[in-house]
Amino acid sequence: MANYRITVRYDGTKYKGWQKLSNCNETIQGKLIGVISRLIGYEVDVIGSGRTDAGVHALGQVANFHLREEVEDLDEFLLKINQYLPEDIAITNIKKVDERFHARYSAKSKTYRYRLHLSPISNVFERKYVYDCSDMSLDADKIRQAADKLIGTHDFKAFCANKHMKKSTIRTIYDIGIIENEYGIDIDYSADGFLQNMVRILTGTLIEVGNNKIAVNDIDQILDKCNRENAGFTAPPQGLCLIEVKY
Amino acid sequence: MANYRITVRYDGTKYKGWQKLSNCNETIQGKLIGVISRLIGYEVDVIGSGRTDAGVHALGQVANFHLREEVEDLDEFLLKINQYLPEDIAITNIKKVDERFHARYSAKSKTYRYRLHLSPISNVFERKYVYDCSDMSLDADKIRQAADKLIGTHDFKAFCANKHMKKSTIRTIYDIGIIENEYGIDIDYSADGFLQNMVRILTGTLIEVGNNKIAVNDIDQILDKCNRENAGFTAPPQGLCLIEVKY
Repeated sequence: MANYRITVRYDGTKYKGWQKLSNCNETIQGKLIGVISRLIGYEVDVIGSGRTDAGVHALGQVANFHLREEVEDLDEFLLKINQYLPEDIAITNIKKVDERFHARYSAKSKTYRYRLHLSPISNVFERKYVYDCSDMSLDADKIRQAADKLIGTHDFKAFCANKHMKKSTIRTIYDIGIIENEYGIDIDYSADGFLQNMVRILTGTLIEVGNNKIAVNDIDQILDKCNRENAGFTAPPQGLCLIEVKY
Repeated sequence: MANYRITVRYDGTKYKGWQKLSNCNETIQGKLIGVISRLIGYEVDVIGSGRTDAGVHALGQVANFHLREEVEDLDEFLLKINQYLPEDIAITNIKKVDERFHARYSAKSKTYRYRLHLSPISNVFERKYVYDCSDMSLDADKIRQAADKLIGTHDFKAFCANKHMKKSTIRTIYDIGIIENEYGIDIDYSADGFLQNMVRILTGTLIEVGNNKIAVNDIDQILDKCNRENAGFTAPPQGLCLIEVKY
C-alpha cells in the first residue's frame, strides 16, 4: 500500500463542483478518479480536502489516494495523469505521504480568495474568475471593519447554506485580508475550515456592508442570532478560488 | 471636429479578427463602430493601428475616430462605451489628439507577444491565451540564435501570407525577446510594422528551429530567397497578443 498526495488546479467554470456525482461525469473528483483508475488498472478513490461548489476554481486543492503498490517513477506518473486530464484540470504536484495522511481530516487550515471586479473597464482576460460588481459602489473601509468582526472563533450557523446541519457550526477564521487592486477588491479568507457556501455568504454579507445595506455593527448580531436569513446573499461561484490547504 | 485616440484590450477568441466585415458583425472594429455610433447618433469610423487575425488578442491595440463635435465629459464617455461593449472587449483609455493623428499611419512601432506553453502541466487559467506545445521539445538557445538573425531590416516576403503583396515587404525588427518562464517561452517581437501573418510565421519558424526541423543557419537563406515555402508553419492565433503600439 502507498498513499499519494496531489495538488490540483482547476478552472471550475464548466464543472458541477468537486464532488463526484453518481449520475454525472462532470465533476473534478470524477475526472481524477476516472483518469487515475484507468492508468492504475483498478478503481482508485480520490479524497479531496473538501468540496468546492459548481463553478468554483482552485489554485491549490489537495487530495490523496491509496494505491496497492508503490509507483516507480512519480514524475512520469504525474505527466501521464496530466496528459489524460482535460485542459481545465491540472495536477501540479504529487508526493508519497504517510499512510495516515487524509486530505480532509488532516487539513489544518484553508485559504480561499474571492475576487470582486469593480472597475467599469472589463478585466477581459480574467473575466471568468471574478464577480462583476461594476454597477455597485462599495466602501472598502466598511468591508474591512466588518471583516475584522468576523475574524476569530464563532458559531457561523448564519453563514451556512445547510439549515439542517447537525455537526458543529463553530469555526475559527484566522484572517480576512481585503486587498484593493487596479480592478477591484480581493478578499482572502483563512480558517480552520468552512461550512457549506460559507465563503460565498460571508462575501455576500461583506458586499452588502460595503453597499450600505447592512451596517458594520450588525455583524455581531448576525453571528449571535445564528439565522441564515440575517446574513447577506450568496455571492456567485465564479469569483471564488481555493488558494491553499495547509497540513 | 475632434479626433479621439483609444486603447483597446480584447480577448479575440470568439471574433473574426479586428477588421469589420460587411457580412458579419463579429469583429472588434465592428463592435466598436456599432457602440460608438449608437452613442454619438451618427456613423463613426474607427481606424485601428492594424488588423489582428481571427482569434488574436490585444492588450494595447490603438485606434482613433473623428467626431463632429468635442465630447464634453471624456471619463463619462469612456464609461458609457465600456458599458455597451461585450465583456471580452474593453477601452482602457481615451484622449483627444491632434487632428492629424492616424492610428495606422502615425504608428512608429508595435510589439506583439507570442506565448508558447511547454509544461506538461496545463496553465488552466490562461490556457486560451497560449499555444500548447507541451508535446514538443524546444531548444530555447537555438530559438534565441535564430531570433538574433531575424532582428534588423530585411525583406520579410518569406514571412508574409500574402503572395501577391504589391507594396514593400521590407520591415525593421528592433528586437525579439525570448523569455523563459514557469510554463514555457514568451517571444516578444518589436518592429516598425508587420506583414500579414508575419508574427505567426516567424513564430512557426522559430518553433521549427527549436525543434531541429530548421537549422539556425538556414534563417539567412530563408530571408534571402523570399519564398514563403522555405519558412516555417503559421503558428495558431490564440497564442498571439498585440501588446503595445508606439507613436
